[in-house]
Amino acid sequence: MRYHHGDLRRALLCAAEEVLEREGPAALSLRELARVIGVSHNAPYRHFADREALLAAVAADGFRRLATGLAAADAAAPPGERLQATGRAYLDFARTHRALYLLMFGPGLRKSAHAELRDAARAAFDVLRDVVASAGIPPGPRARHGAIGAWALVHGLAHLTADGQIAEDLGADGHAMLIADVLESYATGLCATAG
Amino acid sequence: MRYHHGDLRRALLCAAEEVLEREGPAALSLRELARVIGVSHNAPYRHFADREALLAAVAADGFRRLATGLAAADAAAPPGERLQATGRAYLDFARTHRALYLLMFGPGLRKSAHAELRDAARAAFDVLRDVVASAGIPPGPRARHGAIGAWALVHGLAHLTADGQIAEDLGADGHAMLIADVLESYATGLCATAG
Repeated sequence: MRYHHGDLRRALLCAAEEVLEREGPAALSLRELARVIGVSHNAPYRHFADREALLAAVAADGFRRLATGLAAADAAAPPGERLQATGRAYLDFARTHRALYLLMFGPGLRKSAHAELRDAARAAFDVLRDVVASAGIPPGPRARHGAIGAWALVHGLAHLTADGQIAEDLGADGHAMLIADVLESYATGLCATAG
Repeated sequence: MRYHHGDLRRALLCAAEEVLEREGPAALSLRELARVIGVSHNAPYRHFADREALLAAVAADGFRRLATGLAAADAAAPPGERLQATGRAYLDFARTHRALYLLMFGPGLRKSAHAELRDAARAAFDVLRDVVASAGIPPGPRARHGAIGAWALVHGLAHLTADGQIAEDLGADGHAMLIADVLESYATGLCATAG
């Protein structure tokens, strides 16, 4: 099969995410991807210097989609519930893209070495920062801390869930109630302490 | 060198943690540990069936020490600040035992397969649950959710810090202020919503 320049890059990223979710990161190689999408085994190297560059691009793509999902949840929610809605959107992303999420936040990728990845991660954080600002927290260190705390909270929930440490015995309804309670506590506390 | 039965197990765990913090999990093998502490390369197998059993024992040991540290911080703090003091103790543990902490919560160990590890992790969580209870939250689902949320919050902070996602530009004082703000927000919200 032949691809135009931009199409091949996109096809490689899509195939990489599929392999990642289905078989885990260990199964990912540029050679295997070339086989999956039916191009010569050298073709991927036109777009990615090595396996780590491919993983960084997949993770950056993940951060961009996470940012889009967070912004959409914020825009759709009533003002008083934006922080909670954004938190739920974050957790939904982590649950439905488990392997991608673990790649994005895992120890395997040196974020400092990949500008595209670092910028995409920062842009996703900026959405959270804007959501905190829209909750009426005045700009300043407390707003910044509040946004980092919100991120840490949903990250911790996503990570402990993915790790099987929590919610194993809760069921779907129980898990949703846990998330609702925790996000409400945090949002309430943030507004009370940052006013 | 010769060890008594219990001493050898303890010596293996200590050496394993040293290698883990110094060289990372990939450097850990039963054969390498035997070399480090000067016993025959078969000796470690008297205590650990394989590498994963050793890692599980190291992680279980980590959870027990974490639980002890959390309980001590709680007992030493004035009642109104216990949740924050416990949170700081958790984050101190994660920072000073970075590789051990990542092992304890990493995807590499199947907790369900190691009863000792699962029980030690649960006991550490029980300390957090008691701290939340001591903050005056009545027993019930909200107290349980509050404890899970507290754990998720400090876990997220520890993990994002270890991953280099936050606090790179904050400095030690800025990081301490971030932690103080975030823990105060959460504790305030928990008490306000769970009353």
